[in-house]
Amino acid sequence: MSLPTRRGTRIAHIGVAVRAIDELLPFYRDVLGLTGVPLDDSDGARIAGLAAGESLVELLEPAESGSPIDKYIAKRGPGIHHICFAVDDLDAALERCRAAGVRLIDEKPRMGAEGKRIAFLHPSGTGGVLIELTEN
Amino acid sequence: MSLPTRRGTRIAHIGVAVRAIDELLPFYRDVLGLTGVPLDDSDGARIAGLAAGESLVELLEPAESGSPIDKYIAKRGPGIHHICFAVDDLDAALERCRAAGVRLIDEKPRMGAEGKRIAFLHPSGTGGVLIELTEN
Repeated sequence: MSLPTRRGTRIAHIGVAVRAIDELLPFYRDVLGLTGVPLDDSDGARIAGLAAGESLVELLEPAESGSPIDKYIAKRGPGIHHICFAVDDLDAALERCRAAGVRLIDEKPRMGAEGKRIAFLHPSGTGGVLIELTEN
Repeated sequence: MSLPTRRGTRIAHIGVAVRAIDELLPFYRDVLGLTGVPLDDSDGARIAGLAAGESLVELLEPAESGSPIDKYIAKRGPGIHHICFAVDDLDAALERCRAAGVRLIDEKPRMGAEGKRIAFLHPSGTGGVLIELTEN
């Protein structure tokens, strides 16, 4: 008998805000050699997933005016929007955030684009980086 | 006899611009559960490496006034600075960039902080994302 395998924290995906997926897809697919992964829309964004080893690159294109990605591009221009870490135990990680005084955007986990529970942390507690947590 | 193993493109590291490594290290190490990896200074930045699965998070703190990270923080504030992809063949990837009209910052590979050949691509050709390439 052995203990359950625990993968440890890894990068689940990098979310990249783009004006138009069609303009960037050839670069990520043909120049970098990543493979497309179908993903549903989420949070008012069209999403193109690209597998990079154990992680994904997610190209996020505004599908609705006023959506988070639309507002981000209007304010900062296109670029890296967030980083998502997969942890072994999401609830325990959120507890560690609370104990360390790291402000949460999502106090309770909700369903994300990949069909897993997710929660966003507030950039004010993470050195200006928008971090999403999900579970292995 | 078999062909050489090719890993395929993966995320080698995420470079995060921070004002002070000491302020953010507890979050990445104790809250997210990442493990420290010693790395040398590079490009006028102190670097704290943290292993996240097959990738690293690199916290980049300005060690010199006027260094790239110092200028980045002055202009945009702290946050995600660049993403580094490891490819199977760096020279071939740079050729694909040239063929696709993606502008290069480093026309020829140079040595990076992890002791491997690297080259940066210009954000103007990658949808506003500063991308570094290295080799598996």
